[in-house]
Amino acid sequence: MYTLYYSPGTASMVVHLALLEIGAPHELKLVDFDRDAQRDPGYLELNPRGVVPTLVIDGRPRCESAALLAMLAERHPEAKLIPPPGTPEREAWQQWVVYLSNTLMSTYRLWFYPAELGAEEHTPEVRAALRKKIEDVWDLLDAQLERHGPYLLGAAFSGADLLLTMLMRWSRNMPRPATEWPALKRLADLVRARPSWKKLYELEGLTEW
Amino acid sequence: MYTLYYSPGTASMVVHLALLEIGAPHELKLVDFDRDAQRDPGYLELNPRGVVPTLVIDGRPRCESAALLAMLAERHPEAKLIPPPGTPEREAWQQWVVYLSNTLMSTYRLWFYPAELGAEEHTPEVRAALRKKIEDVWDLLDAQLERHGPYLLGAAFSGADLLLTMLMRWSRNMPRPATEWPALKRLADLVRARPSWKKLYELEGLTEW
Repeated sequence: MYTLYYSPGTASMVVHLALLEIGAPHELKLVDFDRDAQRDPGYLELNPRGVVPTLVIDGRPRCESAALLAMLAERHPEAKLIPPPGTPEREAWQQWVVYLSNTLMSTYRLWFYPAELGAEEHTPEVRAALRKKIEDVWDLLDAQLERHGPYLLGAAFSGADLLLTMLMRWSRNMPRPATEWPALKRLADLVRARPSWKKLYELEGLTEW
Repeated sequence: MYTLYYSPGTASMVVHLALLEIGAPHELKLVDFDRDAQRDPGYLELNPRGVVPTLVIDGRPRCESAALLAMLAERHPEAKLIPPPGTPEREAWQQWVVYLSNTLMSTYRLWFYPAELGAEEHTPEVRAALRKKIEDVWDLLDAQLERHGPYLLGAAFSGADLLLTMLMRWSRNMPRPATEWPALKRLADLVRARPSWKKLYELEGLTEW
């Protein structure tokens, strides 16, 4: 049995999408950012960083969205969110998931929370540098998908595409959103057409892409 | 057959350590940072980000050190670098490896390369903020290891400890190195006593902790 601590549109989104893709019974618990519920002592027991998501798996609280995606994918191989062990596709999955997580998740944190760099607001130099770090990722991924797409693993959809599309979504109000890269847009369109994506929008009350 | 593209003491270290722990035959190829060999067109074909490590697995070039650790660990279960699928320990492994990679790897990059934030040198504010981000991780991990150590998974050593010890090492010239946290020091001492660690120092010509 799963319990997901989430906040709409945040990093919990990829875990929520994975649960919907799998069709696994789960309970949702909203972590109310408006009242800073991610810093509640009770929540910090589950998630010492004070971030979402937390997924409770048979009573065990687990953190880190990319890791939670891997855990769910491995526990439900029939959903084909991760390729089987011992295949080259599994290596590719592992590589892309770590890459996305390392490069984009961490840089977005700085982009959205200048306090993480000790500032109230970013200087134009820092802003430009962070933007470049993010756009360099779009360049690299677009080239990969152009040659070996439409999905990150090629012909077959996987959980890595859920993670990528969530991260693309976060760029929607940036100077140059990820959907301006054609092969990335093609992938996002495929993922956004999936029933899991539509269902998540309903459940989390999301409207904006 | 494995070929590891490495540079001494960098993120390739954890992959090199994993190969030594496993005892898997492999070839080492030095990527000479002094002549910027990580930007050579030939190397960029293998590793589009232009970073080390790259591990070539039966002809397939793969990147991202935390992912390479997972790939090697899964391919050689007898080395017990990762717990078997379907166990709670495997979930813990996945969580910690993603956490280390997300928080420390990305922040060290900014700490060591101010250009990544568009600066020649960090301002004192940025420097303090990055230092805090790194030390917050030591606080969290020290508390974890104090209660549930000596290793990240508890009583049993795993590949996650190799990754953590490498990352601790990178703090050795920081204002407050990771070894000043007692439970972290205890873990590093255990890992540094392993034959793989000593062998790596010989092979990579490292002297400083």
